[in-house]
Amino acid sequence: MKAIDNTETASCLTNPGRRRVLLGGAGTFAALSLIPLSPLARAEEKLALPDYAVWKEADAVIVHSKKTIETKRDAIGSGGITSTDRLYVRNNLPPPSAEVMTNADAWEIRIEGVNRPATLTVAELKKIGVETVVAVLQCSGNGRAFFEHGPGGTQWATGAAGCVAWTGVPLKQVIDRLGGYQAGMQYITSTGGETLPEGLDQKLVVVERSVPLRALDHAILAWEMNDEPLPLAHGGPLRIVIPGYFGVNNVKYVKQIAFTEQQTTAKIQASGYRIRPVGEKGAPDQPSMWEMPVKSWVTSPVSRSKAGINMIYGVAFGGTVPLEKIELSMDAGKTWQAARFLGADMGPYAWRPFVFATDLKPGTYEIVSRATDINGQTQPKHRTDNERGYGNNSWSDHGLSLQVS
Amino acid sequence: MKAIDNTETASCLTNPGRRRVLLGGAGTFAALSLIPLSPLARAEEKLALPDYAVWKEADAVIVHSKKTIETKRDAIGSGGITSTDRLYVRNNLPPPSAEVMTNADAWEIRIEGVNRPATLTVAELKKIGVETVVAVLQCSGNGRAFFEHGPGGTQWATGAAGCVAWTGVPLKQVIDRLGGYQAGMQYITSTGGETLPEGLDQKLVVVERSVPLRALDHAILAWEMNDEPLPLAHGGPLRIVIPGYFGVNNVKYVKQIAFTEQQTTAKIQASGYRIRPVGEKGAPDQPSMWEMPVKSWVTSPVSRSKAGINMIYGVAFGGTVPLEKIELSMDAGKTWQAARFLGADMGPYAWRPFVFATDLKPGTYEIVSRATDINGQTQPKHRTDNERGYGNNSWSDHGLSLQVS
Repeated sequence: MKAIDNTETASCLTNPGRRRVLLGGAGTFAALSLIPLSPLARAEEKLALPDYAVWKEADAVIVHSKKTIETKRDAIGSGGITSTDRLYVRNNLPPPSAEVMTNADAWEIRIEGVNRPATLTVAELKKIGVETVVAVLQCSGNGRAFFEHGPGGTQWATGAAGCVAWTGVPLKQVIDRLGGYQAGMQYITSTGGETLPEGLDQKLVVVERSVPLRALDHAILAWEMNDEPLPLAHGGPLRIVIPGYFGVNNVKYVKQIAFTEQQTTAKIQASGYRIRPVGEKGAPDQPSMWEMPVKSWVTSPVSRSKAGINMIYGVAFGGTVPLEKIELSMDAGKTWQAARFLGADMGPYAWRPFVFATDLKPGTYEIVSRATDINGQTQPKHRTDNERGYGNNSWSDHGLSLQVS
Repeated sequence: MKAIDNTETASCLTNPGRRRVLLGGAGTFAALSLIPLSPLARAEEKLALPDYAVWKEADAVIVHSKKTIETKRDAIGSGGITSTDRLYVRNNLPPPSAEVMTNADAWEIRIEGVNRPATLTVAELKKIGVETVVAVLQCSGNGRAFFEHGPGGTQWATGAAGCVAWTGVPLKQVIDRLGGYQAGMQYITSTGGETLPEGLDQKLVVVERSVPLRALDHAILAWEMNDEPLPLAHGGPLRIVIPGYFGVNNVKYVKQIAFTEQQTTAKIQASGYRIRPVGEKGAPDQPSMWEMPVKSWVTSPVSRSKAGINMIYGVAFGGTVPLEKIELSMDAGKTWQAARFLGADMGPYAWRPFVFATDLKPGTYEIVSRATDINGQTQPKHRTDNERGYGNNSWSDHGLSLQVS
């Protein structure tokens, strides 16, 4: 059972050879913490893109495993929307057969916990309503590579995040059509349509996530991203998108939405994706990875540059809260200056590219950025250490050293 | 000289075989007006994508010629930004050698008519400043196919338009760096860097356009589109983008910007791209194709659909003026209803996708859309006939018949 004892770790290391090495038995996490694999080391292995994502731009991504593909730090540009062929991928299970995409409009979703439960096809959803929401998609473990206690799981640095224009029907419109949710319901529970491995307790592996009812105001059932049909790699034919929430809540291949009194008891919800002290096991009374906190990082230049005027680029977002400002420091946070947002504000859930022009002499610069939202929440200097390496929005962790010659 | 007597017509029919047929000598335009080639007829020829644009999505475009590629009406989605591989192409001359893209940062532009004239590389421009502007790019001849007098030139229907996120330096910042423009200057004159055919009067073929000084407030020198380096097909390494102005003013491969007292005497400015009565020749005292008027059209569904709820999609933009509203009619303009804008407002120069939900019985519907800007300007019912078929923003011309069964 060890291989599935932690769904997340197992699923992000599907390459059989590597899995044997890293998940060989007891003591795995101790070994990991002694010999952390840096993102760079992984990139050098140059794993091939998996079949379902073979159309990704190979030079712009780091393939960690068949189910985890990271966008390179400097492959995030300044245009606001992350192109689909550069967007990261993080699957918890292998995707359904690509055949489901041949008639995507026939994909069915069951809606439960409403006054008139129903099964609807994507074709039917498309007739109920439509909206486009630009929202950041970010894995809970983005920034895990910077934790020093060596949490297991994919060693994401900055690239398990992107900003996407999602198009679909507002969930609220669907629910209204079905008579509203039943009295007493507190959560929206979404179930993924992956084929589950046989012979296992399904609750251990199923991708089923609950989010609080407050997410209903903005959730959409999306069939398009960036103006094209949602590809299988990103949850097509249908994905629930909960703007401002961590990626795991945006369940792919969604086959059921249930309004429920309690959170699901699926492992991925009950003990997975919980913030807890290092060394503790996950449990339902720990904070769940729901709303994303304010965050930013510099995307370019990443290592070397020439003396003279340099344009320092980055991205910043506030999760569910619009941004107030972005600041930049060239000296590891000793002094800060205002940077400037770039381009259109695409709404509260979108990230905003930013830029800072600075005249640099030769030397080494420790560049960090710090975003503040309109509620006055600012990125902290230090991460909050936690067992799984979740939710890292520390400004110091996300800094980089720039060598200027 | 007939073949270059009208630069625009000649340049859009470079396939030697077709050019012989269509531009065989005197009487060409009469012949064209008797036997108009519909966009459909051209699509059926299925010309191959030219080398410099071979990466375009073949199924999403209509290749009219090596220099003119149209986006299919229903290939415009609802996401707001037109993906680069679907964006139309309209070149006036063959592009420079693809070699210029191998070191795009070395591309040079000369700035004249300022107090300190200078030659700057793209690398230097990148250090002066940066902005991202989302703006509609539209050919002056978009909608030409609907004119009944058979104007020569590419028979664009709706697809010589797209909405792009352009990234580059605001021209004003460059000019400020060079001491501002010289007193008395009234125009910004941009020159393209194409290699001109030998043995011809260069003024007849050079792509050189003047726009009024008021365009300085928003013009940018762009090196990126949609978050990627500007491809050769769209004017890379460097293009001037004048938000809200017709495509021709957004000079590709721009090698010189001059602030001038007068408009250029290049043919493309002096007599080309001028609104004049049918049968008249172009002249400098006629209106030039500068600011785009308010416009919209339905993009989906385009021909057939099924009874029941239908979502009618389209796009609308106001040129340099933000939109106030968008209306839809299912009965050729007898009755109108408000449609709804979809997604983020990406600024005054962006288009806005719109949607209208309607419950349709079997039958034929004549669907038209009508946009109004915040100055109260509304699309007219009828186009203004003009010799070259420019600037068509008639709502009735852009309607479509939907067969519902």
